[in-house]
Amino acid sequence: MIRSVTNRDLRYSLENGAGSDAIHTNPHYSYAVTNLISGDHTGTGFAFTLGAGNELVCQAAAFYAQQLIGKDIEELMHGYGEVFKKLANEQQFRWLGPHKGIVHLGLASVTNACFDLWAKKRNVPLWKLLTGLSPEAIVSLLDFSYVEDVLTKEAALQMLQNEAAAKQQRMAILEKGYTAYDTSVGWFNYSDSAIVHNAKKAVANGFKALKLKVGSAAEEKDIRRAKLIREAVGNDIKIMLDANQQWDLQKAIRICNELKKIDPYWIEEPTHPDDILAHKTLAETIAPVKLALGEHVPNSVLFKNFLQTGSAGFIQVDAVRVGGVSEFILVSLLCKKFGVPVVPHVGDMGQLHQHLVLFNHISLGHEALFLEHIPHLKKHFVHPVKIENGVYLTPQEPGSSCDLK
Amino acid sequence: MIRSVTNRDLRYSLENGAGSDAIHTNPHYSYAVTNLISGDHTGTGFAFTLGAGNELVCQAAAFYAQQLIGKDIEELMHGYGEVFKKLANEQQFRWLGPHKGIVHLGLASVTNACFDLWAKKRNVPLWKLLTGLSPEAIVSLLDFSYVEDVLTKEAALQMLQNEAAAKQQRMAILEKGYTAYDTSVGWFNYSDSAIVHNAKKAVANGFKALKLKVGSAAEEKDIRRAKLIREAVGNDIKIMLDANQQWDLQKAIRICNELKKIDPYWIEEPTHPDDILAHKTLAETIAPVKLALGEHVPNSVLFKNFLQTGSAGFIQVDAVRVGGVSEFILVSLLCKKFGVPVVPHVGDMGQLHQHLVLFNHISLGHEALFLEHIPHLKKHFVHPVKIENGVYLTPQEPGSSCDLK
Repeated sequence: MIRSVTNRDLRYSLENGAGSDAIHTNPHYSYAVTNLISGDHTGTGFAFTLGAGNELVCQAAAFYAQQLIGKDIEELMHGYGEVFKKLANEQQFRWLGPHKGIVHLGLASVTNACFDLWAKKRNVPLWKLLTGLSPEAIVSLLDFSYVEDVLTKEAALQMLQNEAAAKQQRMAILEKGYTAYDTSVGWFNYSDSAIVHNAKKAVANGFKALKLKVGSAAEEKDIRRAKLIREAVGNDIKIMLDANQQWDLQKAIRICNELKKIDPYWIEEPTHPDDILAHKTLAETIAPVKLALGEHVPNSVLFKNFLQTGSAGFIQVDAVRVGGVSEFILVSLLCKKFGVPVVPHVGDMGQLHQHLVLFNHISLGHEALFLEHIPHLKKHFVHPVKIENGVYLTPQEPGSSCDLK
Repeated sequence: MIRSVTNRDLRYSLENGAGSDAIHTNPHYSYAVTNLISGDHTGTGFAFTLGAGNELVCQAAAFYAQQLIGKDIEELMHGYGEVFKKLANEQQFRWLGPHKGIVHLGLASVTNACFDLWAKKRNVPLWKLLTGLSPEAIVSLLDFSYVEDVLTKEAALQMLQNEAAAKQQRMAILEKGYTAYDTSVGWFNYSDSAIVHNAKKAVANGFKALKLKVGSAAEEKDIRRAKLIREAVGNDIKIMLDANQQWDLQKAIRICNELKKIDPYWIEEPTHPDDILAHKTLAETIAPVKLALGEHVPNSVLFKNFLQTGSAGFIQVDAVRVGGVSEFILVSLLCKKFGVPVVPHVGDMGQLHQHLVLFNHISLGHEALFLEHIPHLKKHFVHPVKIENGVYLTPQEPGSSCDLK
């Protein structure tokens, strides 16, 4: 039984321009943490923010978490889809979203704490719990409201049943580890010489894919830096370019057509995250170069729209932005249905997502492409992710690896 | 100079099922109020919520309002578009939206307080200040970020210049008053006999248009009540049906095809407010019946998408939901460009919007259709709206009529 809950506002300053991009010039990586205390176990979940207002997410999380006091975690998770629906639609609080912004970040924090507590109670890593669930148990974790015009609960169940036969074979990933890509080589405020140095070092450390922040006021700068990195690492390394919403549609079309020349693996967040139709137009204009999007997309309804328009080459749903693990899985199912790979944004620094991408591969049959890696908060986690030779080693501790010191 | 700011959390309980709809069963109409104190004047603005979490909107408003201390209101409003852009994109706080949910409600509260203070300083009602502005002064109030693919600042200026010649003629509305429609006849929790009684009374009081809440679990109930109201008021009165997001797409198609039979003037908020493509499909399916939407649409980017898909027959942008008066005007310009009428949702009970619809008609050339009227909070305002024979009388007090007792 969940005896008590606490919410904590944890903030970490970054050094020397780390974390900077075209829009977020000086972020303080922060977590709005929920702890659910039940017997000897403490479930930990969080949402990610950039500092200011993290206290508001904590308060929203507390609003939801209070409603779980006195509940048994196994009972909650047996049908968490209904729990999620009820919390997400509390009739007064819902007005503040619905299903977006601070209230939804608060729900993410609480949902993730539930999944962590559940895995700790069962004394297994979250990936192990999730990959061991039956198709029926998985769909009961999800709220299909407003997505049933493209994916009903019954169709999702069928998809999961179809994937069951190949699950055992895909477990091979657990030994091999999940490939990582390195986001920390090319932050916006880093100098040209620093990004070249970092890129070469990352490749030497085994990474096969790197990210560069673009979206400068002077577009020549973006193009120059992209070329510098391509020259530094050669043509066998994937380079992803991330504009963090900096461009409007016209500017995006113009610059993306220039950036094409360095053969980017994707171009990420080119414009406003609510602009379904601008992404559609841009994707059609710059094909075959693909767009990656989702870091700021708050819920399954908007992801459904992006998938329906065919504008996303890669979906970067983040379980600490949408309503937590439950909605992450729902969005991953939608992506599978549309044949679009899931490459999460890791507001959690990969702690939680290392579990979720294993589940996505093993149980949903998603391609094991790669997972973003950001190292800056490692020292603050009790069980930091382990990367060796560019690969995430499969976590073995019980829970979702989200406990903070 | 703005010397100090205060934020107040004001909540009002409603009686006997007033305010209830299919989703919001027991709302407490609430305002997250910003007061800007400058010399002898106090600017008042607010965002609207349904109770729980109103304190979070107050905190978000305080975050923005603190940044205005020491500024001169005339200087702020000479180029408020840039002020809005800077506030809305504060690099850490922005993560919590962007441009949606609690942070954007907070910005609405602060923006509206700025417009109120501005009008009070000039000692005129807000409608008079706005309708007296030059086209150049109007566009300088607006942030065109991410909508320039359909409306540039230059094109907006041209639109306003084109409307200038007919402004004088349209001032006739000030004498005539702006027509109201009555939302309070058919709340969700009202009995059948109550809605029939209220509808007849509203017509006797001069209203020519009424709203009924639908979205019952039992669809027969919706259809029965819609027929009851039509029979009670006859065929010359407009009836609007409001589902408050209760349906998914399939259900919306099925029920709307039934509700068509009572000849509704519009069907409002049929499904999730983020679902651009579901609205498009529904609008195409049930034409010529039109959809009204916007009560929960948070920003100009999403409104742009709805307009681009042609799914909205009426746009119900609410200046206490989007980022305040500034974004309301921008959305109204977008609507004008697409030829779609603006019929605001009145979270403000019409206090602020009575000014804005006069501006929309006189300066933008929008049709003076009608404005929602909800009477439940009248006694709490210093200058409550005045309705006579179904018409809003033009307010004469300086400011935006938003001061609360």
